[in-house]
Formats: sequence, structure tokens, C-alpha cells
Amino acid sequence: MHSINSSIHSVTAFAPATCANVAVGFDILGFALEDVGDYVTLEPRHDNKIIIESIVSKDSLPFSTDNNVASFVIKKLCQDLKCDIGFSIKIKKGIPISSGMGGSSASAVAALVAFNAFLQTPLSLHELVQYALLGEELVSGHQHADNIVPCMFGGLTLIHSLHPIEVIQLPIPDLYCVLVHPHLHVSTMQARKILKHELSLKDYVKQSANLAACIAALYSNNIPLLKKALTDVIIEPQRAHFVPGFYKIKQAALKSGAVGVSFSGSGPSLFALAENKHDADEIGKIMSEQLQNEEVTSDCWISRISNKAAHITQSS
Amino acid sequence: MHSINSSIHSVTAFAPATCANVAVGFDILGFALEDVGDYVTLEPRHDNKIIIESIVSKDSLPFSTDNNVASFVIKKLCQDLKCDIGFSIKIKKGIPISSGMGGSSASAVAALVAFNAFLQTPLSLHELVQYALLGEELVSGHQHADNIVPCMFGGLTLIHSLHPIEVIQLPIPDLYCVLVHPHLHVSTMQARKILKHELSLKDYVKQSANLAACIAALYSNNIPLLKKALTDVIIEPQRAHFVPGFYKIKQAALKSGAVGVSFSGSGPSLFALAENKHDADEIGKIMSEQLQNEEVTSDCWISRISNKAAHITQSS
Repeated sequence: MHSINSSIHSVTAFAPATCANVAVGFDILGFALEDVGDYVTLEPRHDNKIIIESIVSKDSLPFSTDNNVASFVIKKLCQDLKCDIGFSIKIKKGIPISSGMGGSSASAVAALVAFNAFLQTPLSLHELVQYALLGEELVSGHQHADNIVPCMFGGLTLIHSLHPIEVIQLPIPDLYCVLVHPHLHVSTMQARKILKHELSLKDYVKQSANLAACIAALYSNNIPLLKKALTDVIIEPQRAHFVPGFYKIKQAALKSGAVGVSFSGSGPSLFALAENKHDADEIGKIMSEQLQNEEVTSDCWISRISNKAAHITQSS
Repeated sequence: MHSINSSIHSVTAFAPATCANVAVGFDILGFALEDVGDYVTLEPRHDNKIIIESIVSKDSLPFSTDNNVASFVIKKLCQDLKCDIGFSIKIKKGIPISSGMGGSSASAVAALVAFNAFLQTPLSLHELVQYALLGEELVSGHQHADNIVPCMFGGLTLIHSLHPIEVIQLPIPDLYCVLVHPHLHVSTMQARKILKHELSLKDYVKQSANLAACIAALYSNNIPLLKKALTDVIIEPQRAHFVPGFYKIKQAALKSGAVGVSFSGSGPSLFALAENKHDADEIGKIMSEQLQNEEVTSDCWISRISNKAAHITQSS
């Protein structure tokens, strides 16, 4: 049984939006964004119940504690640690759902980080990751960590192994990320389901070369090489139809100087990297216009790749 | 028409043996060895014929100029450049054939580097690579460059693209390579033929994670990470049966401190990396003993990863 610090009345944690896959790192690469993210507040209850008190979100999210990812992971953790406590949970979503920006990860991670602050002996981030993975499984049917890990650890991360979790922090390039969220819903579960279970050896060799070149480019700070390397020949072609005019949008962004464009996570959001703020603004504008041509409205965020992990923002 | 320097009577070039694939880099990674390699000498002939004058080798190699890789690439190049010259070719093989040590690449590369010395305006290494690829195609039925590139450029190389050829020189780790050649013949053509044309998405993710971690380990000089990363879940299992007792040999080498063990190229040679000369000697001994247990004799070379490219050793 883990001891709870009973003098704490309320903890709020922030967890950032994340961009997973990064074109060539399906299920293994991801990075955290600045400022955009979810907030979860936990307030202890003496009736040992876990309830969702409020959700502030543009989207409709489940209040059922077995279906909401934040409450689900807290429940699991409370059970496993045999904690004699309940919580009222308040969720403030900054990340649209089914957007490919790691919304479910951020809610789970924020809840776990907030919960950890109540423990006399906090768990390690590696331990918390295992619970966040259960949340991903709830939402997508699959334990993938490429949003969870950058959300929990910050930065640009490579997941070398899932069980046990082994994380490599890669050098963060001096680039801006343009994240465009078309107002289309693609559930992660659906986005995974459509993927073929097999791929050709030929495509594997091409993608391997791009992945290896991408890692080399990050370590040697070689942006022209990174630009050439960020080409996904395996996953992106299978998901391109999620966004009307995908290839036109991509071409337009590349023509405006983008250092790589692809889906953020399983989409439909798209990310582009840019060498400076001016390019980033321009690329964001052009991508949104291209979507508009397809009669799809969108939101756009411009952010550095953030080395800030999920963290406590308020504790009383 | 390219001009030939007619004052040269003889040129000898050396091209090193190479270890391709390096467990996680099928068709894209390879490194050069020290000292072991092939020598090719070219002497101009005024009858415009290309003939193989002599071959010094433990193995039997073709004298037919259309089947011998050294003469084949020289013939192609002479034709394309419309060179008004012939050559007598002498080949001294240091690399056993069908060993997985890049023997055909070394003969082709040595021949091309020697030939280049006769040109008033030498070709670039990138141009020569294209001809060496034709040699690989002759021998294996497939244009793979993972032996050619480290042979031609030296060092530990990543092939980012084949057409056009784009090469990344990776940081060379401070390790010894143990190369064990069991006296078994496996032709590259056969070794490629048995490979499945498809692989599972699951294995792809695992191998990607290992490849990315391997590149990260090289740049950050993280040998423990490199050790974990050098695990091939795709190609090695399909070729393990080439060498009796493969997994026992591998286990024994790892137990003796090897930083990764797998096939060199398409096998049957095996490479292991070792942290120091003492470990390397020990690992080589143990691998040879294990092969002996399976009634397979072998040769063993111990070498640093060489940053020396193929080069001219004599010119008169």
C-alpha cells in the first residue's frame, strides 16, 4: 500500500500535445510541442470514489470513468497501489480529440503526473509510462508510446524498447513545427486498422535509409539531409486519403521551404518543420489555404519542439 | 572520348574487405576492414583487348572477362568512355569468395580505382560506384551497394540513396571487429533468393527502433546502447541455417563480451564487435572453437574498422 500525502488539496498538471511518427519513425519517434496541451486537476475525495467533475473541451468526451482515459489510468493506478483514496477529476482539453496531436496521451499523462504528486514516494516516469500505455490501449486498441513518451519526458524522443521502456533523447533541431489540424475526425483505432500488416522488403530498405539518415542529420545538425530524410514510403501513402488534397498540401508546404511534411501521429493533423518563424507562418498559411480549397477548415499552431516534459502547474 | 595518360605502364590498387548490413542495416550499412582485401593491377595493352592475365586466389575464379567482376566493370567503363585502350589485368585475392566479406566488391572497386589512375580527368568516386554496382549485379543479380560504398569510401558508411548515390560517413566506434569465415560457401545470389519479399509491420517497428538506436549510439559513442541495438529480427533469422550452430556461436561470443554478433553481409562469415584487442582475440577463439564443434573449420581476422578507402598502392 502506497502512502498518500493527505495535506494536499488539489494538484493540476499540464501535459503537452505531441507529434508522433515524425514521417520515418512509426511508433518510435515523437516530439513535444510548446504551450498546446491538456490540464488535469485532481482533488482528493474521502469517499474513495473516482469521478469526473468537469470537462472543458470543444469536443464531447466521456464522463464514464471507465471510458475516459484520465480517470481510467488513475483508477488502474489506485487499484494497483492499493491507495485508500478517491479523486474528483477536472479536465481542461487544449488538444482536439482524434486530431493526431496526442490528446489521449496528454490527458492520461497529465492525470498520472498530478496523481504522482500525492504519493509520499512518487513513481518513476518509466513506471508512469506503463499506465499511460494502458490508456492508449483503451483509446486505440494498441499500446503505442510514441505520443506518451515525448509527452512524459519532453523533447524529441526515440523509443528503443517498450517493455522495459527505454527512451533515447535525440538532439532537438533548431526548427519550428507547424501543426495544422483539419477539422476532420480520424480515430487512432481506425487509423491503425487500415494499415497493412506486411510491407515489402524494398520499402523497408528505403524507409530504413531515411530513418538512419534522419537520426544522423539530427546528431550532425544537417538540415538539408534532414529534409531529404523525412520521407515516409510506408505509412503515409496508406493514410493520405484521410485528408482531401493531401499531396497538394504537402507539395505546397515543401515548395514554401518546409523541411519535411507528413501526418502528425495517425493524422488527420499534419506537421511541417520550418527553418525560421517567417517560413513557419508562411507554411501554416499555405497549408490552411490548400485545405480551404478542399472545403476543409483548420486550426494551425506554430511551436518550437519543446524540451519541457509534462509538469505540475498548481499544487495547494 | 576520355583521354588516357599513356605514360603510365602499370597501376595496382588495393580495395579492403568489408562487412555489410551490420545486423540492423540491411543493404544500407557497411564498414571497411584493415589490411584484408584484394589487389588489382592494370597494364595497358595496345591491341585494345581486355584480358585477365593472372589470378592469385585460394578459390577458383573465372578468367572469362564477361564473368569476372574486375574485367567486367573495366570493359563497361572503357565502352562508355570510348577509351581507345586495352588492359592486362592481374588479380590478387585476399578475400575468400562467397564468404560475405565483400570479395566481389573489392575486386570491382580495386579495378575501377586502378583504371581511374589512367584517366587524364579521373571520374568521381560517385561515378565509379555506379560501375561497381553493375559488378554486384553480375555476381548477385542485384545492385546492392553496402559493400561497394565502404570499400570505395572507407569507414563506416550509411547509404541514404542509391540513385543518385548519397553516402553518409558515420562516426567510427573505438571497437575491434572479429571476422570469422567458416569454410562454407554461400553465394550472395542464393543468400538473397531465400529472403522473403515481405516482412511484418511488427518486426519493422522493432528493427527500426534498433537501427535508430544504433545510429544514435554511434553519434553519442554509447557502447552499451550499441550492444542492445545490434539485434537483427528480420534478416538474420532467415539466414541462421547457413551456419551450423549459429545461435550457439552467437551466444558464446556475446557471453565473451561481444558488442553485437551477426552475419557479415549475406554470410556465411560472421562478425562480432569487441571493446578491446584482448576481448577480440578471445571472441575469435571461442567462435572458431564453436564452429569446430560443428565440424566446420574457419579463418579469423581481427581488425579495426578502417577509415581507409580503396587506394593506389603502386604506379609506374
